[in-house]
Amino acid sequence: MINAGIVGASGYTGGELMRLLLNHPNVNIEAATSRRLAGEAVSDTHKHLRGFIDLKFEDLDPEEIKERCDVVFVAVPHGTAMNIVPELIDNDVKVIDLSADYRLKTDIFEQVYGMEHADPRDAVFGLVELHPEIKDQSFIANPGCYPTGATLSAAPLADAGLLNMAIFDSKSGITGAGINPTPASHYPNMAENVQAYKLTTHRHRAEIFQELNRLDANLTNVSFTPHVVPSIRGILTTAHLFVNDDLSVEDVRGIYSEFYKNKPFVRVLDDIPSLGAVRGSNFCDIGFEVDANNGRIVVISAIDNLVKGASGQAIQNMNVMCGLDETTGIWTPATSP
Amino acid sequence: MINAGIVGASGYTGGELMRLLLNHPNVNIEAATSRRLAGEAVSDTHKHLRGFIDLKFEDLDPEEIKERCDVVFVAVPHGTAMNIVPELIDNDVKVIDLSADYRLKTDIFEQVYGMEHADPRDAVFGLVELHPEIKDQSFIANPGCYPTGATLSAAPLADAGLLNMAIFDSKSGITGAGINPTPASHYPNMAENVQAYKLTTHRHRAEIFQELNRLDANLTNVSFTPHVVPSIRGILTTAHLFVNDDLSVEDVRGIYSEFYKNKPFVRVLDDIPSLGAVRGSNFCDIGFEVDANNGRIVVISAIDNLVKGASGQAIQNMNVMCGLDETTGIWTPATSP
Amino acid sequence: MINAGIVGASGYTGGELMRLLLNHPNVNIEAATSRRLAGEAVSDTHKHLRGFIDLKFEDLDPEEIKERCDVVFVAVPHGTAMNIVPELIDNDVKVIDLSADYRLKTDIFEQVYGMEHADPRDAVFGLVELHPEIKDQSFIANPGCYPTGATLSAAPLADAGLLNMAIFDSKSGITGAGINPTPASHYPNMAENVQAYKLTTHRHRAEIFQELNRLDANLTNVSFTPHVVPSIRGILTTAHLFVNDDLSVEDVRGIYSEFYKNKPFVRVLDDIPSLGAVRGSNFCDIGFEVDANNGRIVVISAIDNLVKGASGQAIQNMNVMCGLDETTGIWTPATSP
Amino acid sequence: MINAGIVGASGYTGGELMRLLLNHPNVNIEAATSRRLAGEAVSDTHKHLRGFIDLKFEDLDPEEIKERCDVVFVAVPHGTAMNIVPELIDNDVKVIDLSADYRLKTDIFEQVYGMEHADPRDAVFGLVELHPEIKDQSFIANPGCYPTGATLSAAPLADAGLLNMAIFDSKSGITGAGINPTPASHYPNMAENVQAYKLTTHRHRAEIFQELNRLDANLTNVSFTPHVVPSIRGILTTAHLFVNDDLSVEDVRGIYSEFYKNKPFVRVLDDIPSLGAVRGSNFCDIGFEVDANNGRIVVISAIDNLVKGASGQAIQNMNVMCGLDETTGIWTPATSP
Repeated sequence: MINAGIVGASGYTGGELMRLLLNHPNVNIEAATSRRLAGEAVSDTHKHLRGFIDLKFEDLDPEEIKERCDVVFVAVPHGTAMNIVPELIDNDVKVIDLSADYRLKTDIFEQVYGMEHADPRDAVFGLVELHPEIKDQSFIANPGCYPTGATLSAAPLADAGLLNMAIFDSKSGITGAGINPTPASHYPNMAENVQAYKLTTHRHRAEIFQELNRLDANLTNVSFTPHVVPSIRGILTTAHLFVNDDLSVEDVRGIYSEFYKNKPFVRVLDDIPSLGAVRGSNFCDIGFEVDANNGRIVVISAIDNLVKGASGQAIQNMNVMCGLDETTGIWTPATSP
Repeated sequence: MINAGIVGASGYTGGELMRLLLNHPNVNIEAATSRRLAGEAVSDTHKHLRGFIDLKFEDLDPEEIKERCDVVFVAVPHGTAMNIVPELIDNDVKVIDLSADYRLKTDIFEQVYGMEHADPRDAVFGLVELHPEIKDQSFIANPGCYPTGATLSAAPLADAGLLNMAIFDSKSGITGAGINPTPASHYPNMAENVQAYKLTTHRHRAEIFQELNRLDANLTNVSFTPHVVPSIRGILTTAHLFVNDDLSVEDVRGIYSEFYKNKPFVRVLDDIPSLGAVRGSNFCDIGFEVDANNGRIVVISAIDNLVKGASGQAIQNMNVMCGLDETTGIWTPATSP
Repeated sequence: MINAGIVGASGYTGGELMRLLLNHPNVNIEAATSRRLAGEAVSDTHKHLRGFIDLKFEDLDPEEIKERCDVVFVAVPHGTAMNIVPELIDNDVKVIDLSADYRLKTDIFEQVYGMEHADPRDAVFGLVELHPEIKDQSFIANPGCYPTGATLSAAPLADAGLLNMAIFDSKSGITGAGINPTPASHYPNMAENVQAYKLTTHRHRAEIFQELNRLDANLTNVSFTPHVVPSIRGILTTAHLFVNDDLSVEDVRGIYSEFYKNKPFVRVLDDIPSLGAVRGSNFCDIGFEVDANNGRIVVISAIDNLVKGASGQAIQNMNVMCGLDETTGIWTPATSP
Repeated sequence: MINAGIVGASGYTGGELMRLLLNHPNVNIEAATSRRLAGEAVSDTHKHLRGFIDLKFEDLDPEEIKERCDVVFVAVPHGTAMNIVPELIDNDVKVIDLSADYRLKTDIFEQVYGMEHADPRDAVFGLVELHPEIKDQSFIANPGCYPTGATLSAAPLADAGLLNMAIFDSKSGITGAGINPTPASHYPNMAENVQAYKLTTHRHRAEIFQELNRLDANLTNVSFTPHVVPSIRGILTTAHLFVNDDLSVEDVRGIYSEFYKNKPFVRVLDDIPSLGAVRGSNFCDIGFEVDANNGRIVVISAIDNLVKGASGQAIQNMNVMCGLDETTGIWTPATSP
């Protein structure tokens, strides 16, 4: 059994890690830390776990965590993770960081996040479908929620050198903003509404750009506009992709199917994905149409932001890092409707 | 392995049976019938099951089903089940009927549903927490969604002979009305609304009454008023229970805890249940307050109408009927938030 | 023109007062106070009023308000109003207090709210349909949102001396909890949920009881259980009313129709009310069914909690106090769907 | 007084026309037709109008309508309007057609809608902000809901000759799909979801293109992708506009403010619009950000699809056609929250 620890377990990604790990045949949840809630029962915060988990939140230092855990998931805010991760990393302890701290090259991180990096180290970007090298790593930077759905929607065309320009228009459920109430998450503001924000400046654009640019160094025009919609979970990304070639529906289907063969969590569909079919699951559903008149391909990807966009993907990374089948413990269908 | 068949698999309870059975270690889904969709892939209707199930809907007669299946779940409308069940029943085939046809004593059924019963046979009411005799049965009438939450909320007091009068005010998600669009399920009508209906005449009252009256033959004043609320899943029942004795909080807690000890799917809480903590799971959460001034105890129960209120409970019944632990394959926490 | 002032104008009831008063032919909005937002444009907070109102929030003392205003709406929290109202009251200034401070008899207030009353004065309870004496008053206590819908649902039977016991089970939109984000109003908690709270101890029970008991001094068994549902606005109250006589549908219809004739904002319907038909309007829709077997009448009332349950009713009070037709400026249909 | 008739009054736009016209000081609603519901009370369908309107639906032929009405709103499906409009048009009767039949040049209409046009006549496109010539017309084609929000978001840049390419990504409330229940409007499908559809082929693209191309004949690359979101009302359009010049925030603000000065229903904001601030009102709110790196300007427009996107705009057209101030009867703030 793998002894797993979760650093910063009081939020949504922490709760979701535990919900999923409870079903994992090879994992024992050994520790859940929270400075603020230390001493309180985990299931007082994550009430759906009552009867499943007897742990109390603990306030542990990295040394203690390392002693007790084989794998550590770091689920603290960006800027905090970089002060914890260095002490955790060890040949025998595997670390998956769900924060933004190690996803970008250090200089880009410092520019985008406006802060000096306390631990300027490179990490492999944990998008399993694009990074086979994960299997040899002991430290992984788990991707952001928006970058997961956006990158997967465009990667096959970028990889084929066919992509000229990409505009990602994403619609997210509000859990992406966290467990703490804010004006944006206030029901009278969120219900019956769509709220666009950071129309041109969202930090996740840098992750999407980095990944697509890695696949095609000539691709420079990548833009991203996020919205929140009245949904608890899920991100639907509408990728308006402009290509430098005439592509038929069959061409596009061929490119995507080939690119994602043997990627069990990406389903390339004949119809248009929607959030219901991925809710609670680790899938990324992809569908598309070709707009030949405008040289545009519209690709839709759907993920659950808390699973494939965060905790499920983190476990997928853990599986690969630990030599398990990547689907172990997370091969469950969505809860739908 | 148990070979399971689902008769009438195109609706929500059919989809939910398959979602749950796919996780069951002892079950193989052998057949899913639908006259209307025969020949179509199951996952074209239940899109969240893409990648998990390769079955096509079939149009099978009872003889064919019996040949291939050890357990059959009947998920057709009331009035239809009674024409299928008799041919299915067999010493070697176990049948769980999710329709209303066998839940009530025949004469009550005929009165409440306004039709003659084609197969006037008694069945055990499949509320596992109240019916230990299920383990010896090969035919079970699975309870209605409202009766499950309402009966569990009041059974301990009825069993103790303390209940004088019960008023159940239930709030249900709209999946209880089925997979077909109707004015009631039309988003502009359902969103931002609460719709009370059948204020005094809902057929499920008879089930609730039958079960509580079985526990206390003196109890006669039982009423039930249902509402739909803007939620996909879930039933929250507010039980206004008038008791013939002064009961303290500790008294009530003692009665409920004792009654539900060793009932793993009923969680008696110190706080007030809500739908999020049971969504997608087979739990019934129960909480309460005592209104000493009015001789009233307010008990709240929360279930997922498609799981504990239908398909999950059906599998719980199957487990007991097959000699498995009742939690097998359905011991998963809610998907929350 | 009537010069109106709003004390505490930054919340939902303040915004709603302005939205409605902007349509009122006899009113000029003269002042909107907020200590916290003094100096900021009203329409920066209430963005839907952009283009309609140029006022800035001001931090005014009662003397300044009195000088500029003929009518003052007090929309501050309970416990605060009692320190402002005394200085506002004046023969020439009419005051409508939307807080809870003056709704209950002083001794009951002190008991229910657990505080000493700074200004133990009696006020007329501003439920226009039940209090014709409002027309001679210069100070009115505007009713609470729940008590408005609950009292109107049961008053005709209480007035007729027919009511033995009343159980009010209310379902409210979340704006009743105010403009500030809280865990209860956090979208992931509120959406797809129903949250019961204060099952037996909500303070509004005292208001409902006071009003019904005034109509029938023998009525003592009155209980109230509130819930929030996923809706921005609206309160649907399910009144389980036990009567001491056999009443037919026609009897009940006759009693309600007679009681509410010449009450333009109460619509007694042949079908079951729902929130959509009153959204944004000052109506209280009422429908019912008779449950003869249990001696129960189930009455449903639907109001918009911010309009008939707060700001619209306050303007209705103002109209009556000022000798205007009670419908002036608020005779508009709901925004539906 | 203007006597107004509504042909096809049983749907959402019919109901909304009546809700708004009831507040119009110069209009009397003289007739509401529906073949299917002839003889039934209008308020049995539009329940929020109970107490406001005593009309019954009638099955009238155009001659009868013309005799009784000065202005006729045609709210029937496309393909039907073209068979009614010719008989209605008359020097003394003004006609506003809310269907798609007369919005496009005839040849484009026939191509886009795949049908022959029974009445190939040109009409003025009723987007008041762009068509001052409306004031002399007696027949107007009222714009589609999506084209209203999309066109207004981009018109100032097109008019200035600065627009190279436009991608409209729109998010609509589900009332745009009508009053009849469908799988798309089924609450379990719509709630907690975002559904993209007709990714590249929606017919409204042709309207948007026609209007923008009229302003700038060189503009050819215009694409449009619609989505439905869990909202009853509203369309939020995210316009990704690529410009052929470096434009600062001040430049863009200047262009929009100048273009929309004296257009009372367009509010150019400093922040990002959202649906709540326009709900139930005739406003189009516009905000934007400049993405200098990508030569992109992201403009957000928010409208209520049933008001500015349909019935409110139709009344705005009527006002202009009848020589009234364009705001008459529809100058009301949104119902928010």
